[in-house]
Amino acid sequence: MLISLLTDYGLTDPYVGEIKARILRLSPEARLVDLTHAVPPGDVAAGAFLLSRAWSSFADGTVHLAVVDPGVGTARPALAARAAGHWFVGPDNGVLSMAASLPDEIWRLDPSRVVPGEAVSATFHGRDIFGPAAARLVAGEDPATIADAVSTMTGLEPVVEDLKGKVVGEVLWIDHFGNAITAIRPDQLGDDPDNMDIRVGGLRIASLHTTFADVEPLSPLAYVGSAGTLELAVRDGDLSERFGVVRGTRVEIRPVAGA
Amino acid sequence: MLISLLTDYGLTDPYVGEIKARILRLSPEARLVDLTHAVPPGDVAAGAFLLSRAWSSFADGTVHLAVVDPGVGTARPALAARAAGHWFVGPDNGVLSMAASLPDEIWRLDPSRVVPGEAVSATFHGRDIFGPAAARLVAGEDPATIADAVSTMTGLEPVVEDLKGKVVGEVLWIDHFGNAITAIRPDQLGDDPDNMDIRVGGLRIASLHTTFADVEPLSPLAYVGSAGTLELAVRDGDLSERFGVVRGTRVEIRPVAGA
Amino acid sequence: MLISLLTDYGLTDPYVGEIKARILRLSPEARLVDLTHAVPPGDVAAGAFLLSRAWSSFADGTVHLAVVDPGVGTARPALAARAAGHWFVGPDNGVLSMAASLPDEIWRLDPSRVVPGEAVSATFHGRDIFGPAAARLVAGEDPATIADAVSTMTGLEPVVEDLKGKVVGEVLWIDHFGNAITAIRPDQLGDDPDNMDIRVGGLRIASLHTTFADVEPLSPLAYVGSAGTLELAVRDGDLSERFGVVRGTRVEIRPVAGA
Repeated sequence: MLISLLTDYGLTDPYVGEIKARILRLSPEARLVDLTHAVPPGDVAAGAFLLSRAWSSFADGTVHLAVVDPGVGTARPALAARAAGHWFVGPDNGVLSMAASLPDEIWRLDPSRVVPGEAVSATFHGRDIFGPAAARLVAGEDPATIADAVSTMTGLEPVVEDLKGKVVGEVLWIDHFGNAITAIRPDQLGDDPDNMDIRVGGLRIASLHTTFADVEPLSPLAYVGSAGTLELAVRDGDLSERFGVVRGTRVEIRPVAGA
Repeated sequence: MLISLLTDYGLTDPYVGEIKARILRLSPEARLVDLTHAVPPGDVAAGAFLLSRAWSSFADGTVHLAVVDPGVGTARPALAARAAGHWFVGPDNGVLSMAASLPDEIWRLDPSRVVPGEAVSATFHGRDIFGPAAARLVAGEDPATIADAVSTMTGLEPVVEDLKGKVVGEVLWIDHFGNAITAIRPDQLGDDPDNMDIRVGGLRIASLHTTFADVEPLSPLAYVGSAGTLELAVRDGDLSERFGVVRGTRVEIRPVAGA
Repeated sequence: MLISLLTDYGLTDPYVGEIKARILRLSPEARLVDLTHAVPPGDVAAGAFLLSRAWSSFADGTVHLAVVDPGVGTARPALAARAAGHWFVGPDNGVLSMAASLPDEIWRLDPSRVVPGEAVSATFHGRDIFGPAAARLVAGEDPATIADAVSTMTGLEPVVEDLKGKVVGEVLWIDHFGNAITAIRPDQLGDDPDNMDIRVGGLRIASLHTTFADVEPLSPLAYVGSAGTLELAVRDGDLSERFGVVRGTRVEIRPVAGA
């Protein structure tokens, strides 16, 4: 009976609290865990990435509510997808697709069955449709009661290109510490961690370390982060600020001669 | 057993956590939902408005704790009001009055009975009085145990004037997206949604739409928002930033000739 | 079954949510209360101070998780300390020491027993070690199952010097309202509250008040705050901004002639 919440609603307004209120009216025993509400407004790709790194820390059966929904009130479908024993609920704009990349089931929510007899606003489906749908699913309700099975959903994947050995990706997220997170996997980094050529913005890093303390204070480093992908940071500092690295900055891993 | 929390304490300090700790000592089974802790410091009217839009999403019996309390430590009464099957707990300065606008009962809390034998600080009644009072009420305790019935509380209502057909209100809140929220009701907007004259700051809007996607990206629009009142926004943009609209900006609905 | 959480992870990323997910996998019934996640990155002393003022509001048996951990991934021990009937879990860098200043037991966590058979990242021990350890302790597990008893932990205490009657301390924290909090105790303030000499930055205050409304709006005041120590504020204003008082600003209490 666990629901995680990820939105771009911020914490200044009572919007997230209103969603929780609606969930708890339908499933008073549900446990609620905030992932983040600081997705940049309307930034579907950022929401998709953050959900993709967080969902697997949760127990099987968790329902993940992800509402980054610039198309609210239009005909874009509202979805629930089941993947790897978890439920993912949100708009059909790609926000679910990095986490539920291989869904076992995809359902299109029918608002008139999710909240029968209740008014649905045109601008706040997090409260009026997605929250109630998550509440019903976490309570074990049959998805066929509130939705219709469909076969596809909008996809969205981080691009990492493997070009003749040169791997090209981008910074997907700058975290609270100024660390830069990519989708580049360890197996794409080459074989010799002491002899690498990692380029991001104007910065060039020649080796892969394990943790911050492996380098001197205020030095940059590359390491495999807690999501299992390449990250770049400055020990005890802010890489983004210091080197002007932002979301979307290109990251290249070049082959090293003789490595 | 649900308590909502709204304060101006922010989330930087452990103040909100300390309130929750005290609540859970008295009512270990209570569920806690944050509405917002980002009310501007001491801004009673903002707190009152945010509570008024959020409370009705909660189940009957919820206790709403609202602490925006610049007069903490003075003789201003501490209140609990019952309205529409919900409890509202906070200082008697108007913060409860937009939500509990027609209270069935008003009680003046007696600190010596709310927390008998415990020290009460002079500057943190959220933790020392209001939190414990909410915890006792949500557990079903008789309010007469901790408070005395009174007949009035401080009122505070958003002003919307109906002047010879011209409706004049103001922007009550700018939300996280830069949308401007008013207290103007749909029935005050005139009869023809395609033929209106809505003025806010230097901006003039001639029709009422349903949702953001009804207009072109980066265009302004007026719509009835998720609180059931007039809102103004820019699709995929920030109306407040773009048009200099802030809290308190005057909003006028003028009659349209021939409409 | 209550766990409080204090970190420097911020709320922008899903890091705190991931910790909670791991806790709830091990202890699904645990209640979780956020103290703050806005400790300045890597600022162990700030985290230690904030925990020290908040922990005693919680019920006996609470587990306090405090992760401000710039040395993550190095050999610095991971600890659990029991003091005053509470558990404190975090890195051995002083972050626990102001709260658990007189520990009854100190245990060094053994990651291979905290999360047997699971991968532990090199950069996110909040999720991979400290969270799971807190979950096990709150469930009543014997600490010997996951840790080894040790006899010392790193200490860190706010310095308040008592020099020939002159008390010298510093501002430990500026809160959300701009109030300045010190570790100076009431008994160090002299005997006559109407005749004092308190100096902080360029500001001099001659008496001790009880609450904000004891002085005129926008006037500075000194008072014993909700943590039981000397605080300085501006009524309805921001002392830090107005007088340039920051963390680390020196505070002096001088003896008053004839007092």
